Amino acid sequence: MSQKTAIRHALSVKRADDFAQWYQEVISEAEMAEESGVRGCMVIKPWGYGIWERIQKLMDARIKEAGVDNCYFPLFIPLSYFAKEAEHVEGFAKEMAVVTHHRLVGDGKGSLVPDPEAKLEEPLVVRPTSETVIGAAMARWVQSWRDLPLLTNQWANVVRWEMRTRMFLRTSEFLWQEGHTAHADRDDAMAETLRALEMYRSFSEDVLAMPVIAGEKPENERFPGAVATYSIEAMMQDGKALQAGTSHYLGTGFAEAAGIRYQDKEGQQALCHTTSWGVSTRLIGGVIMTHGDDDGLRVPPAIAPQQVVILPMLRDNDEDAALLAYCEDLRRELLKVSALGEPLRVLLDKRPGKATQKRWAWVKKGVPLILEIGGRDAAGGQVSVLRRDRLWREDGKVNFAAMARDAFLAQAAFEIEAVQRALHDEALAKRDMNIVRGIDSLDALAGHFGDDNRYPGWVECGWSRPTGAALEEVVVKLKALKLTIRNTPMNAPAPAGTCLFTGAPAVEMIYVARSY
Amino acid sequence: MSQKTAIRHALSVKRADDFAQWYQEVISEAEMAEESGVRGCMVIKPWGYGIWERIQKLMDARIKEAGVDNCYFPLFIPLSYFAKEAEHVEGFAKEMAVVTHHRLVGDGKGSLVPDPEAKLEEPLVVRPTSETVIGAAMARWVQSWRDLPLLTNQWANVVRWEMRTRMFLRTSEFLWQEGHTAHADRDDAMAETLRALEMYRSFSEDVLAMPVIAGEKPENERFPGAVATYSIEAMMQDGKALQAGTSHYLGTGFAEAAGIRYQDKEGQQALCHTTSWGVSTRLIGGVIMTHGDDDGLRVPPAIAPQQVVILPMLRDNDEDAALLAYCEDLRRELLKVSALGEPLRVLLDKRPGKATQKRWAWVKKGVPLILEIGGRDAAGGQVSVLRRDRLWREDGKVNFAAMARDAFLAQAAFEIEAVQRALHDEALAKRDMNIVRGIDSLDALAGHFGDDNRYPGWVECGWSRPTGAALEEVVVKLKALKLTIRNTPMNAPAPAGTCLFTGAPAVEMIYVARSY
Repeated sequence: MSQKTAIRHALSVKRADDFAQWYQEVISEAEMAEESGVRGCMVIKPWGYGIWERIQKLMDARIKEAGVDNCYFPLFIPLSYFAKEAEHVEGFAKEMAVVTHHRLVGDGKGSLVPDPEAKLEEPLVVRPTSETVIGAAMARWVQSWRDLPLLTNQWANVVRWEMRTRMFLRTSEFLWQEGHTAHADRDDAMAETLRALEMYRSFSEDVLAMPVIAGEKPENERFPGAVATYSIEAMMQDGKALQAGTSHYLGTGFAEAAGIRYQDKEGQQALCHTTSWGVSTRLIGGVIMTHGDDDGLRVPPAIAPQQVVILPMLRDNDEDAALLAYCEDLRRELLKVSALGEPLRVLLDKRPGKATQKRWAWVKKGVPLILEIGGRDAAGGQVSVLRRDRLWREDGKVNFAAMARDAFLAQAAFEIEAVQRALHDEALAKRDMNIVRGIDSLDALAGHFGDDNRYPGWVECGWSRPTGAALEEVVVKLKALKLTIRNTPMNAPAPAGTCLFTGAPAVEMIYVARSY
Repeated sequence: MSQKTAIRHALSVKRADDFAQWYQEVISEAEMAEESGVRGCMVIKPWGYGIWERIQKLMDARIKEAGVDNCYFPLFIPLSYFAKEAEHVEGFAKEMAVVTHHRLVGDGKGSLVPDPEAKLEEPLVVRPTSETVIGAAMARWVQSWRDLPLLTNQWANVVRWEMRTRMFLRTSEFLWQEGHTAHADRDDAMAETLRALEMYRSFSEDVLAMPVIAGEKPENERFPGAVATYSIEAMMQDGKALQAGTSHYLGTGFAEAAGIRYQDKEGQQALCHTTSWGVSTRLIGGVIMTHGDDDGLRVPPAIAPQQVVILPMLRDNDEDAALLAYCEDLRRELLKVSALGEPLRVLLDKRPGKATQKRWAWVKKGVPLILEIGGRDAAGGQVSVLRRDRLWREDGKVNFAAMARDAFLAQAAFEIEAVQRALHDEALAKRDMNIVRGIDSLDALAGHFGDDNRYPGWVECGWSRPTGAALEEVVVKLKALKLTIRNTPMNAPAPAGTCLFTGAPAVEMIYVARSY
């Protein structure tokens, strides 16, 4: 490490010094998003939105592959729909954007105000999630067992009036997909709930290169009205947990409220069992905090809007034309290469400006491979290659590798796939190093986490799965330590010993952590 | 025609009898969309949304190809942003959804009401379009001539509080893309305005198989605040015009309101010239009214969610397994075929139900090719093919063609491309037959259109391009006849003769029509 002290990193704030500030700087310097001037809402800029488009495309393919149909439901939900779902609305703390008027009018002083003559009879809520309005549609669509399962999804914006916002992680408006399904019985609904969970787990690991623990949330963390809530939990580089996706088995409660009934094979009326599951632009926050380093973002190649950027070192002279021709040919050849199952995405950056400045802009954006090409490279059939995940040499110099153009073309796909794998493996090793076992008392737990602002990873321990008031007691203790139970991993054997919260025998494993 | 009287069409309403009712029935029977229970908002069902996804995918590729970057901007726009744009907001008739509260609270009687304690200091408008909020971002992003042109687009939902709504054509919430660009000067901005217009024209004709006239709207039909507005206009089968897309050159007015300035090469501050351009889910309404027939929708293959549907005639007996195996093999082979530049989209419909019922469901959805496969077809290596655009034989029977499986596989791509071409050519012929020339007085115009509810196409005539009060006089006369000027086609020579509205010499050509 001592040799590395010479490195002058691209960001002004290091992860180790101020993780929250570093996070903001990555987003700003990678030009992913910015404050919009509208409270709690962000502008997602091309590089950030390009990552979201890649996530959408690859997730949507998995959703369709599972036989789920995309639909679109209204942005507005009449207030009365929420009254049907008392328990449900309680969970959203009623912090929602409410439309009360449908017209503006001049106030006589040069400004506009909501027109008192145009007050809605029934206020409309901007959807915080669409269970109620989709439930109403399902009640129309489902008549018989032949209509089941009914598998729908929508890609949409939703609004939850958040008091404290943080870009990508918690914004008043965010983008997501919400799957909503109706089934004939519990088993089929539960299978769908777990299918979605597994889809999210494999997507996170294979596409986002972000290791996650898939498991069931404790009762106190369930989606309001759900019978069971499952999540994927990722460890950020500050050791905190990020809930990156959820899947809910809703039982028959939502079906009863919305009237989703079907005639079974025996001619009897029965309530459907429903599920819902979603991931959002929050995933991008997870990608930043999993893979970012002190030089900015590092984007897993599977979701990188551009995987290879070619930077010609233009000199505003006669040689530029030959250099550009060489670079354009290189781009054409690279476009014929496939990696991770798709043709490479390659940008030739011909914009004016110094090549070094442009290089650092792309480093901060985290593009997996940067090729710098000078006049001599072009003349000699060479390329100079920089892998974003291996940015620095031991001597503190930028880790460019010169190689013959044809040799690079032959191994470009391998390099891209190697970056994808390396980011995953690095994140997995970091996470596993920061999971602590063997803590057997509440005092030891408190001691481990301390009360300063460090986040020493997650604690894995057994517990007795208390419910009701007994669980509430545990939650209060955890809250005092600013801790939460993340989830009970799927298929994990129950550990030996007793529950450090209740003293009763442990019946399942949980992760305890600080969290976003 | 006399032989055709025997045909029993799939819809209960014919176009000729009640076009508006027919339109609703197509949407309902093709399961494209339905009323949501939320005023003015529809639920877009899988078949309708699948068509929108195809439109999005193909349009987005063209937008990206033009170097435009996708972004995402906030749903909510502070009221004060509109005050800056007095002229702009005037044009939207101020019919907008206004958010005034951010929390619900119990009213003590078991219901929820907006919490009086949670009234927003400044109301938020749900975006009717995003010029103002994108303009504010552009003002931050543009500093120097090097930042220009700035080319952005977003895919989003927007809300305009419509009093009378019609599915896909005019709904309170709709989905669209809105391009917004900033340029150094008028020429560059105008070139972008016309590039977008041409993109829409070719997309409509090549992808939607919907012929359009691209041209400039008259002054009175300009987007509020625009210097020039261009549109593509399509003729529906009732002869009415549908404005299917618009592109606006906004001059420097929006840039001035938002403060979008740049330093030019000489170091002087200058205002940007901006443009905006959009198409929406309205295109789907255009597709229905261009290609639908008395048996339902006919979807152009380029935007059909499924291009080929295979219907096995299952009999719930031992032979079903062999039949299904034959159909699955057929599907696999078809997936290897490319048409219109993409692999075929093929569905094997194995759902329970009678094959005839399923056939008619797919006819009404307008899938381009239907293959019905019985046990004997499977045994004999045959397929029975139905082209949706040639549904009926002269004798009133459904126009199935039996052919050898291999022969069909060899010509499947040709058939798909032939359907695409046939739909376009049929629509073009209908349109051209319904454009009338040679009307040279207002009386003749009134006589041609009559005052009953028939819509005898469009009238092409010359006019003197009056402005201001003179134009207003013309508009009043047209309004009395329920007519509008659609646009002045691009690159059309000025006709000889005088303007039938003003008596002055004609300087350009216009189309006059009733419209949606």
